[in-house]
Amino acid sequence: MTTTDPTSSGNAAPDLVEAHRETLQQGREALASRAYFSRYPESPSPRVYGETAAADGLRAFEAHLASDFSTLGDQPTDGTFAGSELSPYGPLLRVRYPRLDVDAAIVAARSAMPGWRDAGALTRAAVCVEIVDAINKRSFEIANSVMHTSGQPFVMSFQAAGPHAQDRALESIVGALVEQERVPASVVWEKPGRDGPIRMRKDYRIIPRGIGLVIGCNTFPTWNSYPGLFASLATGNPVIVKPHPRAVLPLAISVEVARKVLRDNGFDPALVQLAAESDGEGLAKAIAERPEVAIIDYTGGPGFGGWLERAAAAAGKLVYTEKSGVNSIVVDSTDNLRGVLGNLAFSLSLYSGQMCTTPQNIYVPRDGIETDEGHVSFEGFGATLGGAMTKLTSDDAKAVEILGAIVNDDVRSRATDLPGLAARLGGTVVLDVRKVTHPSYPDAVVRAPGLVALDVANDAGYTRECFGPITFLIATDSTAQSLARMRDTIKEHGAMTAAVYSTSEDVLDDARDAAADAGVALSENLTGPVFVNQTAAFSDYHGTGANPAANAAYVDAAYVANRFRVVTSRRHV
Amino acid sequence: MTTTDPTSSGNAAPDLVEAHRETLQQGREALASRAYFSRYPESPSPRVYGETAAADGLRAFEAHLASDFSTLGDQPTDGTFAGSELSPYGPLLRVRYPRLDVDAAIVAARSAMPGWRDAGALTRAAVCVEIVDAINKRSFEIANSVMHTSGQPFVMSFQAAGPHAQDRALESIVGALVEQERVPASVVWEKPGRDGPIRMRKDYRIIPRGIGLVIGCNTFPTWNSYPGLFASLATGNPVIVKPHPRAVLPLAISVEVARKVLRDNGFDPALVQLAAESDGEGLAKAIAERPEVAIIDYTGGPGFGGWLERAAAAAGKLVYTEKSGVNSIVVDSTDNLRGVLGNLAFSLSLYSGQMCTTPQNIYVPRDGIETDEGHVSFEGFGATLGGAMTKLTSDDAKAVEILGAIVNDDVRSRATDLPGLAARLGGTVVLDVRKVTHPSYPDAVVRAPGLVALDVANDAGYTRECFGPITFLIATDSTAQSLARMRDTIKEHGAMTAAVYSTSEDVLDDARDAAADAGVALSENLTGPVFVNQTAAFSDYHGTGANPAANAAYVDAAYVANRFRVVTSRRHV
Repeated sequence: MTTTDPTSSGNAAPDLVEAHRETLQQGREALASRAYFSRYPESPSPRVYGETAAADGLRAFEAHLASDFSTLGDQPTDGTFAGSELSPYGPLLRVRYPRLDVDAAIVAARSAMPGWRDAGALTRAAVCVEIVDAINKRSFEIANSVMHTSGQPFVMSFQAAGPHAQDRALESIVGALVEQERVPASVVWEKPGRDGPIRMRKDYRIIPRGIGLVIGCNTFPTWNSYPGLFASLATGNPVIVKPHPRAVLPLAISVEVARKVLRDNGFDPALVQLAAESDGEGLAKAIAERPEVAIIDYTGGPGFGGWLERAAAAAGKLVYTEKSGVNSIVVDSTDNLRGVLGNLAFSLSLYSGQMCTTPQNIYVPRDGIETDEGHVSFEGFGATLGGAMTKLTSDDAKAVEILGAIVNDDVRSRATDLPGLAARLGGTVVLDVRKVTHPSYPDAVVRAPGLVALDVANDAGYTRECFGPITFLIATDSTAQSLARMRDTIKEHGAMTAAVYSTSEDVLDDARDAAADAGVALSENLTGPVFVNQTAAFSDYHGTGANPAANAAYVDAAYVANRFRVVTSRRHV
Repeated sequence: MTTTDPTSSGNAAPDLVEAHRETLQQGREALASRAYFSRYPESPSPRVYGETAAADGLRAFEAHLASDFSTLGDQPTDGTFAGSELSPYGPLLRVRYPRLDVDAAIVAARSAMPGWRDAGALTRAAVCVEIVDAINKRSFEIANSVMHTSGQPFVMSFQAAGPHAQDRALESIVGALVEQERVPASVVWEKPGRDGPIRMRKDYRIIPRGIGLVIGCNTFPTWNSYPGLFASLATGNPVIVKPHPRAVLPLAISVEVARKVLRDNGFDPALVQLAAESDGEGLAKAIAERPEVAIIDYTGGPGFGGWLERAAAAAGKLVYTEKSGVNSIVVDSTDNLRGVLGNLAFSLSLYSGQMCTTPQNIYVPRDGIETDEGHVSFEGFGATLGGAMTKLTSDDAKAVEILGAIVNDDVRSRATDLPGLAARLGGTVVLDVRKVTHPSYPDAVVRAPGLVALDVANDAGYTRECFGPITFLIATDSTAQSLARMRDTIKEHGAMTAAVYSTSEDVLDDARDAAADAGVALSENLTGPVFVNQTAAFSDYHGTGANPAANAAYVDAAYVANRFRVVTSRRHV
């Protein structure tokens, strides 16, 4: 065990503060202005990451397969191993992870707290940036591991699980730092009085809450875990990372890196620990129920997420969740129909609709819409959108680079029989789900998404999340009704994203009001290279915390401000 | 109903923004530095508040007695009246308050939200300052109403319920404003790209959460209610104020003022509504369970507070509580024994120990302490402290100006038989509770506090709150044990305050660490005119949110940042 005294000679943290001073300042300024800022290049180009980076990363990933993950140092284990990862592209990963001895891990985490607390906010932020920088160097290895656990196509996996996730991590670190820096270290308080002023010195000390638990998901194991991990860590809390049993490797690598950087800089690696499990062990609940766990970050389904929001919140824990919702688009009119179709087709097809931000409900007036190509009927809009999607994914070899693979059996089952689903929901198939054969992974389940038309009256059909490669085209009486349905379904069932297409400023204004009422972020008239599914760190909040899809947003003040508390000591001077 | 459009000609809010610009700026700077700042003079002197202010305020208070409180305008009522206030000084107040029609009130509150939301953070802050300024003008009326509901002595009632509460309200308004101002209204985001930059305009809109419910307490009806009231209101949420049934009048006056200022400035008075009840109606729970209620601020006992923390938090509501605890002092040594005794005697005697911040447990080594007057034994310290308390309260006519009256039967029952209580707890009476006769109110129950000595081993005796005029002197093996017991009891049972007396820098350092571990603010060597029970707005946090006494602090970022959410709309430019 290394020393936890940050002033000891073995501690390299002061160097890190200097090394990352400019990055942190850039981050502070970006977060205040919400202007563009990115530290980690999103291009997997050899010119950026090095000629051998891609091959090295692939080799490093392959070295994990069918092996024991033995690089977590002295993390306490009960001597057994977990592991049930199955690549959506076919092969079993057969990585074996040492199971965490939870009792010992909690003791270790708690004993690591005082040194980390007393290191101060700036040092913690610098160490966290150093961790993310070190994670960035493993981006290709992590990209392969995310591809083969989530089913994402490779380039998406590189970007979303690599630099985009790292930028979100940095955003979280900066958000936490800014919030802690709002509390001055000390003040001399001077109250005027009849017999001269009363003077007191008051020192303000930032203290952590307790152990943070981060519960990862299957589809975005790093992107959705880093914000909570680094928000808790940067505010002084040790973190136990509990990955989804089908997506352990990307977080195991991340935890390994974090532990090494902590240790190398004189801090206790027990500040970040990995709690791997196999399918069905229920480890998240067991750890969440431990009284020492004070903060829980969760991404996943509404069942366990709802339990956390009820039971863990009732136990006084801070709970940050992202669950599910019915992402919605209102189509009213456009002066760029090709642009709308191209943008929508890509948004719906990317990762076969398995993003928490993929649109599910598209509201279109049953009388059709006005466009730069003339009036287009509801049926015509569906047909041309289906055509655009078909064209985008017509070549199997190219399509798999957009579609990826279907992540798990649950989603697979929904994608098997669209005519049956449409019939059950009382709708009609506009575009059937299409089987795509992966040129390199013949066992991969790859599906090009389909479209189902529903009448607006059939709200049982479209008011629940139908995660995966299926989108509903909903015929409404009018755009006003489209907006009202969007607002009401999101208020009740939640959404991470919403969008509107209209050439009318009045309709856009109404859409903004509907989005504000529903508590959902709105994208307007996206026809270019920005997609409704995508958000940019430091500028776009991910989620709002204002509708049932998620009770928090990446990264606003509320996401970080309550992860630490302030203790004052005061005395006369 | 007045218009809620802030741009309409009837709206005076732009003037208020100008009128309060400097105040808000001073508040921002004070909150950032935590230096001394006060807007509302704490002296009830005629030179400050005017020659006739005291008499006018008394007359205004008396005009309420035995009358219907009819100045809430068009607040919806069910036609019945509530009222069961009994002055701790004797008389029944017999004020009758129109009962709120809760269903109609919720409808009215919700319909008031869009106009208030769209007014923007700065206008809301300015309107809130205007409300507090208007409340300040009623300080004498409120002081009398607090004196005759809480039992506070008059000058304390004036200061705590008047200017000090108003400064806390301003702190809350400024805290909320600062947090909202961290979100820019708009940005043009420009991402570099191969074919030129991608440019988007993003607008960030602050939206409220829902209806806030503020549940007042009997002892500090305004001081403990204003922070939550103004934090919710300033962030765009309408508020229903549910006073303690025995302390309605101070909040009824405050709500009346708020509604008038809102109406006069073109906003809907339904943004602040009063929900008065008589004893035992259980109205707080009924309103708290309404799904439209999104935020709850509570001060009071641990029973209902614990229910809120469990049930209301499990329902997804934000819950801010202040409940109970075991405030603690560690006495190690001093170079100013007279100062220690004088300071402690006043802290223990003020309002007969009925402050949530009054020390309950005083840990003293059983071998005594070193002082500037030589070694003082444990027994000697108890005797001299008892002597100082007796001297402070020996003259009944003067004593009542410190002691006030005992607030209710529950506290009275604890104050009746100190020898019996001491015997049950296994301790000995050091100073008995003394009956004091009020010169003006013969029926007032006034008690000078007592002291009970306990051994540290007898922890069943001192590890629960014993609210009222009783303090425990706890004999420990050493100061190290004193600090450990202070830390452990506060971690388990909570505390709003802690203090230490020592001439040793090492002991003070250890005390700071113990306070940090316990999550409690520490006062060191208070021997002058600052008391451990008192905190200053803008500088001292009230509570930490880090121990079981309270889950929040007045006013840190966490107290305000989650009361609103942010909704983005983005489009290419």
